[in-house]
Amino acid sequence: MTITRRTMLHRIGAVGGLTAVAGAMQSMGWFGVARAASLEEMPGDLGQGRSVVVLGAGIAGLVAAFELEQRGFDVTVIEARGRVGGKAWTVRDGDRIAMQGEQDQIAHFSEGLYFNAGPARLPSFHQGILGYAKRFGVPLEVEVNSSRSAYLVAKNGNKLRMRTAINDMRGHVSELLAKAVNQGALDSALSMDEKAKLLPFLKAYGDLQGDYAFKGTTRSGFRTGPGAGVSSFETANAPVPLADLLANEQLAMMGFEDNLYMQATMFQPVGGMDQISLGIERHLKKRAVLDAEVLRIRQLESGVEIAWIDKSSGAARIMRADYCVCTIPFPVLAGIEANFAAPVASAIASVVYEDSNKVAFEAPRFWERDQIYGGLTFVGGETSLIWYPSWGLHEDRGMIVGCYSSGEPGKAFARRPMAEQIAMARAAIDSVHPGHGADCSAPLVVNWRKIPYSLGPWPNWIPGVRNRGEHPMTDTPAFRLLNQPDGRIFFASAALSQTPGWQEGALQSAHATVAALVDQMRARALAEPRVRAAAA
Amino acid sequence: MTITRRTMLHRIGAVGGLTAVAGAMQSMGWFGVARAASLEEMPGDLGQGRSVVVLGAGIAGLVAAFELEQRGFDVTVIEARGRVGGKAWTVRDGDRIAMQGEQDQIAHFSEGLYFNAGPARLPSFHQGILGYAKRFGVPLEVEVNSSRSAYLVAKNGNKLRMRTAINDMRGHVSELLAKAVNQGALDSALSMDEKAKLLPFLKAYGDLQGDYAFKGTTRSGFRTGPGAGVSSFETANAPVPLADLLANEQLAMMGFEDNLYMQATMFQPVGGMDQISLGIERHLKKRAVLDAEVLRIRQLESGVEIAWIDKSSGAARIMRADYCVCTIPFPVLAGIEANFAAPVASAIASVVYEDSNKVAFEAPRFWERDQIYGGLTFVGGETSLIWYPSWGLHEDRGMIVGCYSSGEPGKAFARRPMAEQIAMARAAIDSVHPGHGADCSAPLVVNWRKIPYSLGPWPNWIPGVRNRGEHPMTDTPAFRLLNQPDGRIFFASAALSQTPGWQEGALQSAHATVAALVDQMRARALAEPRVRAAAA
Repeated sequence: MTITRRTMLHRIGAVGGLTAVAGAMQSMGWFGVARAASLEEMPGDLGQGRSVVVLGAGIAGLVAAFELEQRGFDVTVIEARGRVGGKAWTVRDGDRIAMQGEQDQIAHFSEGLYFNAGPARLPSFHQGILGYAKRFGVPLEVEVNSSRSAYLVAKNGNKLRMRTAINDMRGHVSELLAKAVNQGALDSALSMDEKAKLLPFLKAYGDLQGDYAFKGTTRSGFRTGPGAGVSSFETANAPVPLADLLANEQLAMMGFEDNLYMQATMFQPVGGMDQISLGIERHLKKRAVLDAEVLRIRQLESGVEIAWIDKSSGAARIMRADYCVCTIPFPVLAGIEANFAAPVASAIASVVYEDSNKVAFEAPRFWERDQIYGGLTFVGGETSLIWYPSWGLHEDRGMIVGCYSSGEPGKAFARRPMAEQIAMARAAIDSVHPGHGADCSAPLVVNWRKIPYSLGPWPNWIPGVRNRGEHPMTDTPAFRLLNQPDGRIFFASAALSQTPGWQEGALQSAHATVAALVDQMRARALAEPRVRAAAA
Repeated sequence: MTITRRTMLHRIGAVGGLTAVAGAMQSMGWFGVARAASLEEMPGDLGQGRSVVVLGAGIAGLVAAFELEQRGFDVTVIEARGRVGGKAWTVRDGDRIAMQGEQDQIAHFSEGLYFNAGPARLPSFHQGILGYAKRFGVPLEVEVNSSRSAYLVAKNGNKLRMRTAINDMRGHVSELLAKAVNQGALDSALSMDEKAKLLPFLKAYGDLQGDYAFKGTTRSGFRTGPGAGVSSFETANAPVPLADLLANEQLAMMGFEDNLYMQATMFQPVGGMDQISLGIERHLKKRAVLDAEVLRIRQLESGVEIAWIDKSSGAARIMRADYCVCTIPFPVLAGIEANFAAPVASAIASVVYEDSNKVAFEAPRFWERDQIYGGLTFVGGETSLIWYPSWGLHEDRGMIVGCYSSGEPGKAFARRPMAEQIAMARAAIDSVHPGHGADCSAPLVVNWRKIPYSLGPWPNWIPGVRNRGEHPMTDTPAFRLLNQPDGRIFFASAALSQTPGWQEGALQSAHATVAALVDQMRARALAEPRVRAAAA
């Protein structure tokens, strides 16, 4: 059947050219942007004699480059920064942070400390990126995304331990539901059997007493802890009243840990998130060209031409290739001279990027004295949360993130002077850990909107609308268009995936792009036998 | 005031002797078994000229020895095994497991693998044991006690992912409670304000729709996962029906992670639990005497005399000391010749120990292909659970615990022939990970009741009764009596704490014992001025 389809496509190509073949392939389900499953089936010499220039050495660019190289393509990666990894950026002592409109910051960290300015956690189900880490021998360690010792902090400053919020609330919910069930209020919703089983479940679920009353639980912490001998037996605190729990504006954030993207077990690379990018790049046959800022992208009759400047020497360079995989963030790409098709150019210009900010400090590990080891404290507002380090346990010093915000609060935050941002992050830490704001030194601010070559963390395809998974909705005409190649130029980016804020999205987009590029190459070979002949 | 009290005690001693002084001190709250808080106040030369023999080099013995040495006592630790650590036992390749009534087992593990046969996790609030790990530079890593990818397995073999059980159940509970609230069924239990805040909370808590209906949630996993481009948008599965969830006998085990002793963040020492014991022992001035089996314990007029046998040479030894700290498990101690006071001897003989079993295998890490990284799968029955390793992520092979059971099911399990225990643990793994039971090799069985020098994992002071924290109740006359010294012999053990199953309990008991020993020494000095004079 393959032969029949090939033969037919060949005939379509002879008559109607590439577009007709592509259309026919698409209608046969043989052409598309999401062919990742077929990567394994592609022979290693598939791309022989074909060249690809990849613009950008973030995860999307590196993954595309690696997978294309593995299939025989001659790949050149061009990266504007002096490092690979893109937003998967680990800041270490001595590193410089340049932001548009701000004074440069230099990291002054104690030995061994680092700060993941971009992505900092990997969920269990992100098997693509975990798989690359495994394949390239990048050691991972557990990232503690949820600690029962962390806090939910109300606007009025009242704070609840996560364990208290979760377990006292579950106690109240269980007590109330048991009451309703026992009153017969839910008899029409529950079968006799469900009712009979639900009640003992609720007793265990909420740690209720024999009469289904919630009188407090040691799950929320001890009033008196257990000790040796008969001096101290464990007892529970009285429950926090329901009204007091509900008054905490952050209460629902207790469920953050059950967002699928945030569920245990989560990971981080040992030593910094950039270890994954470095691991992939280390396995490229041709290493990435760094400090190479793209000036112009041109589609030619039979290939692409990229003009770039070598930032270290100032020399202008031009290179040609058969195909281009462009991973440059759209706000950056919109400023680069290019002869994209008009609808593509206007789609690129239309993409709105979000704000995202992190403010990090170095500090003595005062949070450990409060029995907090990793996890998140939710404070809301423009600084949103405090993120404790999952590594370096029991060492003298560690990194604490005093702000990680995005959305509208993040936008407002990024507009503030840097000194004010630092003061707000420090104050947030101090409000949760009184007296310790002053212990936080070596502040670093990252406002992703101001970071050159990024100009934002991720797009919001439908501004203001987020889907259930906390990720921007993506299914818009511009999103669909940019997920198609413009001739020989293919766009790849986490921005073009369903999860624009995750490295896995970048990887999925890269895989899809490799598949689409191969499809187009095959279509061209069928449509233009002379190309195939020339390449043979 | 101290001087007044001292003077008074001195006078009491002159008239009534040690017992009268001790009684007076106790009534002044100056004597007892729980004086851990005062350890810091004790001067470093407090015990100068006094000797203590510590029987047993588990956590209780090592901690007591270290703290006594730090206060100037001359301490000798006598340990029957060829290693320190007691039940904090890490088995490595080549190690021999001897059990009473069973053939010896030899561990045959691949390089770097180990098995914590006893305790294997440290909760955040166990600041004593964490503090020793920090003090002695024992590196810790996160122990993943709860993974949303693990399973709850019903008797009929149906299995629920932890994420599905937790989030679908929360969805149903929220929907039902919202329904009752909206019907007004709980109007007498809720204020208007509580009602107004509870409804939106429940919507977030259960991931309900606008009409408070639960239609499934991506928190429970994807029906279709998010991808690149427009090929795949994330969608949720339909919820598991409430009746199906309630039919799973293990359903309530979803709450295991909120038992305070099991809450994130939890830790394990890098390389094995014995690293903590080894770290303490390394810091003793006089290292523990190993392979020294105690034969006889005698209280003398003015000290204690211990007879023991050097197992390596067979030579009998006798040593004397001013005091003895005895950490020998009570079922073992009951078989040792001693001149304890009659009520003490009968209390020792009366202590009933529990059963606890672990069956470990080495295997290729098939669970990682199922996106399980650490955590517990609950299967119930005699094997109880499957425990996945928190370390060695992405390596070829790892240790999997196919049974960790105690209580009545554990007792029944331990009675089975070893081959049957191994077959049952393997079958449990195979039922959850079909086809992979056969991948499990190098089985090791530990039935703690059969382990020499332990004869059980922990006591059950009131057999059959467990408290809310899942720990045996401890406040019995025997427990109280053994928490008092018998003359110059002090008992210390996790068994004498409120948490007999935890190393923290052993540490707390050791601290309390050091304080009690110091109290008695002071009382003796006051009651018998000649002793003080002789020691000066």
